[in-house]
Amino acid sequence: MVTLAVDAMGGDDAPREIVKGVVYAAEQSAETQYLLVGRQAAIEAELSQFAPARDRIAVVEAPDVIEMDEVPVEALKRKRGASITRAVGLVRQGKAQAIVSAGNTGAAVAASYMSLGTLKGIRRPGIAATFYVKEQPVVIMDVGANIHCKPADLLRYGIMASLYAQEVLGVRAPRIGLLNIGEEEKKGIALTRETAELFQRAEPEIAFVGNVEGDALFRGLCDVIICDGFVGNIVLKVSEGLAENVMQVFMDEFEKCSGAGAALDMFHAALDRFRWRIDYAEQGGAPLLGVNGVCIVCHGRSQARAMANAMRCAVRMVQKNLNHKIEALAARVTPLLAEVD
Amino acid sequence: MVTLAVDAMGGDDAPREIVKGVVYAAEQSAETQYLLVGRQAAIEAELSQFAPARDRIAVVEAPDVIEMDEVPVEALKRKRGASITRAVGLVRQGKAQAIVSAGNTGAAVAASYMSLGTLKGIRRPGIAATFYVKEQPVVIMDVGANIHCKPADLLRYGIMASLYAQEVLGVRAPRIGLLNIGEEEKKGIALTRETAELFQRAEPEIAFVGNVEGDALFRGLCDVIICDGFVGNIVLKVSEGLAENVMQVFMDEFEKCSGAGAALDMFHAALDRFRWRIDYAEQGGAPLLGVNGVCIVCHGRSQARAMANAMRCAVRMVQKNLNHKIEALAARVTPLLAEVD
Repeated sequence: MVTLAVDAMGGDDAPREIVKGVVYAAEQSAETQYLLVGRQAAIEAELSQFAPARDRIAVVEAPDVIEMDEVPVEALKRKRGASITRAVGLVRQGKAQAIVSAGNTGAAVAASYMSLGTLKGIRRPGIAATFYVKEQPVVIMDVGANIHCKPADLLRYGIMASLYAQEVLGVRAPRIGLLNIGEEEKKGIALTRETAELFQRAEPEIAFVGNVEGDALFRGLCDVIICDGFVGNIVLKVSEGLAENVMQVFMDEFEKCSGAGAALDMFHAALDRFRWRIDYAEQGGAPLLGVNGVCIVCHGRSQARAMANAMRCAVRMVQKNLNHKIEALAARVTPLLAEVD
Repeated sequence: MVTLAVDAMGGDDAPREIVKGVVYAAEQSAETQYLLVGRQAAIEAELSQFAPARDRIAVVEAPDVIEMDEVPVEALKRKRGASITRAVGLVRQGKAQAIVSAGNTGAAVAASYMSLGTLKGIRRPGIAATFYVKEQPVVIMDVGANIHCKPADLLRYGIMASLYAQEVLGVRAPRIGLLNIGEEEKKGIALTRETAELFQRAEPEIAFVGNVEGDALFRGLCDVIICDGFVGNIVLKVSEGLAENVMQVFMDEFEKCSGAGAALDMFHAALDRFRWRIDYAEQGGAPLLGVNGVCIVCHGRSQARAMANAMRCAVRMVQKNLNHKIEALAARVTPLLAEVD
């Protein structure tokens, strides 16, 4: 039995969509317990609209809520009773094995990092986001947890993201690419040059395909793409913005075509399938890998289905013992880092 | 009369599409002269298929070609008679006012920078790429010419890109955003924090809207987005890859719908309009701003129409005297940079 601490107050549509997500998830799996963390009255009001499996769903009171636009570390200091803090606390105390939150990402990262610490052999945690290209997942890490990365951090991101791709997403022998501005070995800034060298040294523990350019994300050239959190966050936001823009452009184009009822229906179905692939609101969350515990952060706009997906991902990470596998591989690679760490 | 030095040998479909582009451009404008630089026999063979305005199209022999995958500076040293080198030489000698090339971008940048030098008040040139969002241009600079940027370089990119947007693309009072991982003032790495400060000091000479996230490119929040060439190149490639992927996904979806002939036609028309907005092969080139001359680099896949568009852009840059305006604004802003340059 896995127990999840779910931040019921985080997200644009919290607590409604979070509670609904827990109810969905509980219906699908009988082997998980859910602790909904937040303002009890508000959570109970939402729960009362369903006939949930109350033996597996409990509410844990947390009086404070960190808003999406608050400065994370300041807010955590000021709001000692924040739902995210309590959720992380449950994992720290061993009462839950994983946190799932659609709230302020920075707060979830900071609370997890400060309270749970990092895995053995990991210096800084990072967030791994997943894109789907022709039904195949591509993991990009880090997308914003750590903007001051050293080569050894990026190597560890490669270890963590490829184990995540393998164990949780089912990718056999994930190929790792280093995000750069050209494929040649000497391309890029000092960070990428030194990191590429480290990755080469770490073979065959990992499968490194070398430098890849930005379009590799969508070309199936590799399964895992590694970059620092500054670049990764920008890539994520550019992709979100472009994808939304594309959808809008297509909607506009098709609305111009009057009288094309059947075609429009067909088009909307295609659009929905496309949206599913790229939309956080559908896709579920992104794990914060490297903390000593399991933490999944979700997009603020996440709806119930995405939350349920994120919870399933959290359960899988716990069941697969991903953190243990990360520590084992990190230990094997650590000797390589002696000079550069 | 403006004279353009066109690198006839650069690009995946050179010299055919380049020559065709010059023929198109010459038909549209009677006030431009074109020097097609490259292997005379090959160029003449292409020209012979048209009835071009030969009084305004001349061929300048250059025996060597730098391939797309060659290391720029090495190739420039080895191939003294490269078409891009000769084209730049024509501008240096005053025989042409602008270079247009769809060849190896790094070679075009290096040849222009080394041979023409920079404008007064500019330390490093950068490439400005243009996206179209709801028919409105958004300029992003730098997309790969300079991966080691200082804050003062980024400020100058702001000056150059906003003058380009204003004079060449017709944007009135362009708003400049700094690409970052959050909108708050203190967000990001040292480079972005220091650059944001510089931009603030440079007001009201320029209109700075502050930090913007990656999705700003597609949201109309600003007209010009500034970043270093490492980040900008990755953003460009991610956007290209995602846009192509989206088109492929839609094509696949629609091919599944058998018997939907009229809808498919409608869909393809919409797709073409979308492709136009994002595709380099259609959109024309990106100026290398900051060199003492005009140089437009085009995507390797550029077809004739894109080449003609790039030539029109080059002519406009010359006619508008963009470089003179850049030097004037740079001179007004330079005192601000005394401490940081």
